Formats: sequence, structure tokens, C-alpha cells
Amino acid sequence: MGEYQLMIPGPVEVNYEVLSQMSSPVRCHYGEDWAKIYNETVELCKKVVRTQEDLFIYVGSGHAGLDAAIGSLLEEGDKVLVPANGFFGYRLAEIAASHMCKVSLKEIEWGKPISPDEIESELTNDIGIKAVLIVHHETSTGVVNPIREIAAICREKNVLILVDAVSSLGGLDVNMDEWGIDICVSASQKCLAAPPGLMLVAVGQRAWEKIQKRRSSIRGWYLNLVKWKEYADSQRTVQPYFITMAVNNILALRKSVEQILEEGLERRFERHSIIGAMVRTRIRSLGLEVLAEESAASGLVTAVKLPPNSSAIELMEFLRGHYNIQVSNGLGPYVNKAIRIGHMARGAAPDRVIPLLFAIEEWLKQIGYKTRVVK
Amino acid sequence: MGEYQLMIPGPVEVNYEVLSQMSSPVRCHYGEDWAKIYNETVELCKKVVRTQEDLFIYVGSGHAGLDAAIGSLLEEGDKVLVPANGFFGYRLAEIAASHMCKVSLKEIEWGKPISPDEIESELTNDIGIKAVLIVHHETSTGVVNPIREIAAICREKNVLILVDAVSSLGGLDVNMDEWGIDICVSASQKCLAAPPGLMLVAVGQRAWEKIQKRRSSIRGWYLNLVKWKEYADSQRTVQPYFITMAVNNILALRKSVEQILEEGLERRFERHSIIGAMVRTRIRSLGLEVLAEESAASGLVTAVKLPPNSSAIELMEFLRGHYNIQVSNGLGPYVNKAIRIGHMARGAAPDRVIPLLFAIEEWLKQIGYKTRVVK
Repeated sequence: MGEYQLMIPGPVEVNYEVLSQMSSPVRCHYGEDWAKIYNETVELCKKVVRTQEDLFIYVGSGHAGLDAAIGSLLEEGDKVLVPANGFFGYRLAEIAASHMCKVSLKEIEWGKPISPDEIESELTNDIGIKAVLIVHHETSTGVVNPIREIAAICREKNVLILVDAVSSLGGLDVNMDEWGIDICVSASQKCLAAPPGLMLVAVGQRAWEKIQKRRSSIRGWYLNLVKWKEYADSQRTVQPYFITMAVNNILALRKSVEQILEEGLERRFERHSIIGAMVRTRIRSLGLEVLAEESAASGLVTAVKLPPNSSAIELMEFLRGHYNIQVSNGLGPYVNKAIRIGHMARGAAPDRVIPLLFAIEEWLKQIGYKTRVVK
Repeated sequence: MGEYQLMIPGPVEVNYEVLSQMSSPVRCHYGEDWAKIYNETVELCKKVVRTQEDLFIYVGSGHAGLDAAIGSLLEEGDKVLVPANGFFGYRLAEIAASHMCKVSLKEIEWGKPISPDEIESELTNDIGIKAVLIVHHETSTGVVNPIREIAAICREKNVLILVDAVSSLGGLDVNMDEWGIDICVSASQKCLAAPPGLMLVAVGQRAWEKIQKRRSSIRGWYLNLVKWKEYADSQRTVQPYFITMAVNNILALRKSVEQILEEGLERRFERHSIIGAMVRTRIRSLGLEVLAEESAASGLVTAVKLPPNSSAIELMEFLRGHYNIQVSNGLGPYVNKAIRIGHMARGAAPDRVIPLLFAIEEWLKQIGYKTRVVK
């Protein structure tokens, strides 16, 4: 299995300076020296989430973080609003249901953003809703949801907002404190540009207040945020958690977030935005459709609808076979009908996207599709 | 922070061939190529657990595995017997309680093994007990519990047995199928000699039968074993799980388990056993006491009781400062009264333990303790 260029919606390509941290000698996951490294990593991540609140880094995938957040914040019978305009919105609903929440699912057409007005009217119509669970960036469609505006409405209505920023953090602006996000969850392997293995959960004051008022105890051990906080507070300088930390992954994440902050968040967001626009323009100039509505299209992932009677799997094989480029299949209703291109982190660069766009054009010609580009 | 020799009860020192896998280019966590690598790793691990049953590898620490196992197997009101002869026995009880089980805690003196006879009488006296949750190797004391005998009793009494083999797997014999263990949990960073970040959960037929008969649904999403099996069965050749796998950690674990099987399990167990005996003999010859009763002492960890009025922290600082060796403090009643030496995996070798034993002797002389060794 040779090397290939990874252009899927995560995990992303990780640069060697970060990767080499992964093969550092394994060290003790407690003690002052190590706690300092972990705490530094937490502080660096807080700068990306733009929060002064608690932030925890744990061993697990992004979904473990979402599960921890939802299972700790909410309890049996709590009513939650889950707007879903893609695969990961539905997954939030499933996780909430697994914690016995009453899920009010608001289905929105894939490719369209979630409208703040609709959220406002849902919250006005049902004053029983305790929290909105929402995806920031849908990697299934490449759509960005307007979290800032929706969070403002949640504040106004005194409803909590929990944001799945798994794929957006580090690529799109997330401003937890200014926007008033109550819980923000992410993971190491997308725009944070580190290998998979770690999840991040940031928890604000309003969320803690809700958790303190729980009528029932949090089920389970590992994903209990109250316990996380207890250890983070009481063992800060020695071992701010009760598990064996994935020390090598933390070292890699620290290096990666250092690089992100060195690049500068604004510059990084702009880089993604420019590359996204470039990809979409070219895709459309080939006569293909982008799944995301332009006004809400992200610079992180572009989902491309393929011509009728063509096959995403065939295109993926072509790209892998002839260009060593790996992209992803569509999800949900777009399986085999769209490909998803990840241009996150290192992938948000002309030298990464141009060969891919060239290769897609090549394939379109091969299958006899008349592209619009005049050569 | 310089390099130092890691002789704590995990994570363990990882050799460079395994470490270098950690810095492999990040790859896609799905697709045939990758599924093959993941499935190969699962099969290699099954050889160490000695099972033909289901085995899952997930992102998380060992406690995430225990939480998944306990929360999936047991439900609110289920009565469980948890014998505790060390820190991690109590933790099993806590995890079970967090899932609303009725925990019958059987406390046993630290340093002594759990007696099969006692388990038998507990199960005879209380026929309501559905499962025994038990630690194989207590890293808090260095004691091995007789799982084989206890599992036989559980079978006879038709009670399930869930084994925490986090620190034992790869260093002590675990024979899941022959012994009749129902769920066996481990992690990557102890005797499996890979970096931390992955947990292993093996689940047998009797456990699945109990899970199928649950009256209530499993709470939560990430740690739900039923969902794990569903994906492992239905997406075996593409993506046998529903999360983003920590691909680099899997590559490292695969390499490490390959090395373990190359060494041979029996030889490996013997190596640990010999080194353990060597460490204990020397410790006793210095006039110090080993916490574990000799009949049940492991070759993986030796907890050493320190002379009265001496300090484990001071000894640890001495070892770190003068010999670059990191050991651990005692746990529970032995905090600052004992040190714990991990001699697992690469650490189970004379060139690792001799400098440490020498250094301990040196320290004893410095604090004015009359060692028994004649020079």
C-alpha cells in the first residue's frame, strides 16, 4: 500500500514536524513535567476555540466527545432541538436519543444551511426545549451553519447550545465565549491537523449550571464531564484526568496547534476560504454541481454531484489509481452520486487541489462527459 | 525534559520499530486497504487473548473499554460481585455503580490474591449475583488474581465473569476461551508494548446472550458494544466501526503484537516471571518488603514497601535525578509509603532492572538504612 495524497474530509494529511512527535519516546502520563505539557496543550487549544472556559482533551474520537457532552449535559426526558442538514446532524439526534432525550428533529434539505429564523420559531413554538444540538460544519455536504446567529437566539431564549465543531475547529472561526456557545466539541484529526486519537470538549458556565441541576446522576464513568472537571481542578499540576493519556498524540496535537497559531487564525480561515472558492469555481466551470448552496459553502470540504449514470466509486478508483489521490464517497442520499473532497489544513493549498481538479476533468473526458471548459 | 527510562506500571517503554509506525503518514480510516490492516490487528490481538470470539479495538484508554463492557453487559439493578484487593478493583466497583448496578463489594487485603473459595461462597450465598467483575493483575500491588479458577467457579454457578486484563495482557497468560471469560478488556500501553490510545474489548457468546436479554437499552452511543458488533459485522471489509479510528496507533499496535507473537507468548510470560522473581529476591535481600504475597506476585510490577519514615517521593526524585529512571508512587494506603516498579515488556530484562536495583540500594545507604546485602 503506497503513499497517497489524503483529500478526504478527515483525517487530514499531517506534516512531518507534527508526525515526528508521534514517535517520541513514550513518557509518564502524570507528574509535573507532563502535566505542564498537557496544560500547555489545553491552553493552546483554548486559543483556537476562543474560550476562557474549561477545556478538556481526552482519548477518543470526536464522537466520544459528543457523547460525553450530550450524556453529561442532558438527562432522560430532556427535550432537545436537533436541526439536521446532513449526516452528522442525524448522528447528533441519535446520540441524544441514546441518552433518552426527547429529540425534536428538524430536517433541512442537504446542501442548505440551517436558518436562524427557523430555529427562532422552533424555540418560540416549543418553550420546553432545553438545548439545541447543532453541527457547525457538515462534512457530508460542505455546508457551514450560522452558529453565531443561532447561538445569539439560544441565549435570548435561554436555551443551551451544544456545537459539534469536530470538522470546523482550526479551519473556520469558532468563538465560543463571544458567540455564547455552551459546549463545543472537536477532535484532533481534521482542521487541527494532528493524527486521530484525541477529542476536545470545552464547557462553559451555563452548561455547568445545567449539569449541577441534574435530577439524575450521569450514567457511566469514562465520559462523565463532572468527573473530568473534578480531576482537572484537583490534580491540575500532577495528573488533570483519571485515565492514561495518549501522551504521544498530545505531543503531536501541541505541535500542530502551535503551528496553527503561528500561521494565525484569521490567515488560516482566509486560506481555507480562498481555496474553497477556487475549487467550487473550477468544479462549476466543468459543468458539475456543488452540493452546498454557495452562500453557505465551506472552504473545508466540497461535495461534488457527479453526472447522471456515473459512479463515485469509479471516480475514486481512477483518482487513487492514476493520481494517488484519495477522496471520499458521498454520504446518505449521495452515496455513489457525489464525491467529497477534503481541502482542510495542508490540503487547503493550490498545489494540493490543482492536481485533483485536473484529474477530475480528465476522468470526465474519459467517461465522455462534455465539460464546459474550453481548452 | 530529557529522556529517561520508564519503569512505571504503564505506559511502558516502546521500541523504535513500533514507535516509528506512529509517525507513518496518516491514512484513510476506511476502505479495503485499511480494513485489512485493522482486521489483521484484531486477529493478532485475538491470538494474545486466546479467543475465537469477537474482539474490538477502539480509541480510548483502558477505562473506556471497561466502561463499554460494564455499561453494555449490565443494566440498572443488576447485582454484581466485585472483589477488590487493590486500587483497580475499587475502580471496577465505581464504574459498575455509575451504571446503577447493585455492587456487592468484597474487600480483600492489599497484597493478597482473591481466593476462589471466597468467590464460590459469595456466589453460593447470594444467587442474585449476575456477574463477577475482577482485575487480573493489580498494578497497585503487583498481585495476580487466579482468574482461571475463579472463571471455572463462575461457569459452574452460571454467573458471568468480566476481566480487567488492562495490565496483564501480553505479560501474563490470558486464555479467554479455555478459561471461560465472558468479557476481557485490555489496552495498548502496558504489556502489549504500544503507545497509549487504544483499548481492546473481547466479548464472548454468553455475554452477547445476556446483552440480548436486556430489559433496558444501553445508555450512550460511543461505548455501546451492540453498535460495535453491528458495524464490525456489517462493514467488515470497509469500515468495521462507526468512528474515526486512530490509524497511527493501530499501525503501532499491529507491529507490537507481531513482535509479541514472534517472541512467543510462553517465552514472554516466562521472561516476565524470571525478572519478577529476580527483582523480589533482590529487594528482600536489601531488607525491604514486597507488598505482594510471594505466591501471587507478578512478574509485571513490584510494589516495594519503604522503610518507616522514608519517602517514596524522595526516592522517586533520587532515581529520576541521578539515574534517569522513572518509577511510580504507591497507591491508596501506600501513597508515599511504597514505590511501584514496572518491569513489563522491554522493562522485563536484566539491563533494565539491575541499574534500578543498584540505585535503590544506593539511596537506602544515603538515608542511613542498613541494607542486609554484604558487600
